[in-house]
Amino acid sequence: MTRRATGMLVLIRHGQSEWNLENRFTGWWDVNLSPKGVDEARTAGKMMAKAGFSFDVAFTSLLTRAIRTLNLALEEMGDLWLPVVKDWRLNERHYGDLTGYNKAEKAAEVGDEQVFVWRRSFDIPPPPLAAENRYSTAEDRRYAFLSKDALPATESLKDTIVRVLPYWESEIVPQLKAGKNVIISAHGNSLRALVKHLNGISDEDIAGVEIPTGKPLVYHLDDELAVQERYYLHERP
Amino acid sequence: MTRRATGMLVLIRHGQSEWNLENRFTGWWDVNLSPKGVDEARTAGKMMAKAGFSFDVAFTSLLTRAIRTLNLALEEMGDLWLPVVKDWRLNERHYGDLTGYNKAEKAAEVGDEQVFVWRRSFDIPPPPLAAENRYSTAEDRRYAFLSKDALPATESLKDTIVRVLPYWESEIVPQLKAGKNVIISAHGNSLRALVKHLNGISDEDIAGVEIPTGKPLVYHLDDELAVQERYYLHERP
Repeated sequence: MTRRATGMLVLIRHGQSEWNLENRFTGWWDVNLSPKGVDEARTAGKMMAKAGFSFDVAFTSLLTRAIRTLNLALEEMGDLWLPVVKDWRLNERHYGDLTGYNKAEKAAEVGDEQVFVWRRSFDIPPPPLAAENRYSTAEDRRYAFLSKDALPATESLKDTIVRVLPYWESEIVPQLKAGKNVIISAHGNSLRALVKHLNGISDEDIAGVEIPTGKPLVYHLDDELAVQERYYLHERP
Repeated sequence: MTRRATGMLVLIRHGQSEWNLENRFTGWWDVNLSPKGVDEARTAGKMMAKAGFSFDVAFTSLLTRAIRTLNLALEEMGDLWLPVVKDWRLNERHYGDLTGYNKAEKAAEVGDEQVFVWRRSFDIPPPPLAAENRYSTAEDRRYAFLSKDALPATESLKDTIVRVLPYWESEIVPQLKAGKNVIISAHGNSLRALVKHLNGISDEDIAGVEIPTGKPLVYHLDDELAVQERYYLHERP
């Protein structure tokens, strides 16, 4: 095994949210964790503490479910004091006008095939968020600093990757190269962007990669950030 | 009333901790909130949400009880996405070798008068933290970046003020002068330092000023940061 000059990277997808439970398209709508999601986050923190993990810096999105997952895990590790950087570029994929709809109801309306395309194609985004969608985030003050042109109204997985990777390169890679241990608490699709990049997964295959909620995905990287080791941390009896 | 170019400032002392409950000197030892402390923090957040408060940036210490109080309050406000700056200079007063002792037991050992002096004098610190004190924080990795000379081993209230105020001036004042609304979640003595400064309280009188746990203390300041209005936010029926 190569000398590890770089730090350890852990990716964690937020625990179950209230809308995961209700089977609704969530995207940028800011739902909280369900009680099960809170448990998942605390369990992840306990596992990481038991495994002796120790981070230097944490990154997360601007969405409550990812931030809370991080905070609950860090609390279990006794590491709530760590610097936490929150950035919209780690947000979930923006689901456009699907936001708020029940997935089964939407399928009944437009057909299974259409919903499948929106959910699983690499580069076809859903229709843009309508101003009258009651789950519009266009006026949310947390994005007020972004120009109207920079604020997405819908995203394909490809669009999500296009915003996540420059953030990864400019903010997270320098920490890893400095030997820091980094944890990123984020979302199914923003983490897919990172996993695709780190593991060299093709545009065709990435939609089939599922990242489970609340399970720390551990990477050991070499100096060039090539993957030396990758595993999910599991509960041990 | 003067024009308000500056933002609103809210100070909040962390909710009840496990050691407040056990009547022990806590200082820099990192105890968590008690269940009552969690309730106090959530209630504070609900009150601030109801009052329409909206912050731009939050500051807190490196201690779990203050960070969690902030996080719980922000969660209730739907504002967990706010940038949070954590700094040791907002920590509680360092209680030196009193850390971990029960206050009544210590009084039985050294006399009420001596304990009163350590607790309430302005400039007499307790004996420095002994390496063998099981509640020593000298090796805590959250302070590893500080040189041994900068890391306190005990503090009087005066010493606490001497570290809090430069941080206030350099990091928090610029935010207020830029018109930002600021919340600071901290500790009895680090907040005393700020209240003493803002309200011009004398060295003699400050020890008598008690800041209740979990009650948002609201300041409206003018351009020169003179106090225009100051009140505790109370629960309304």
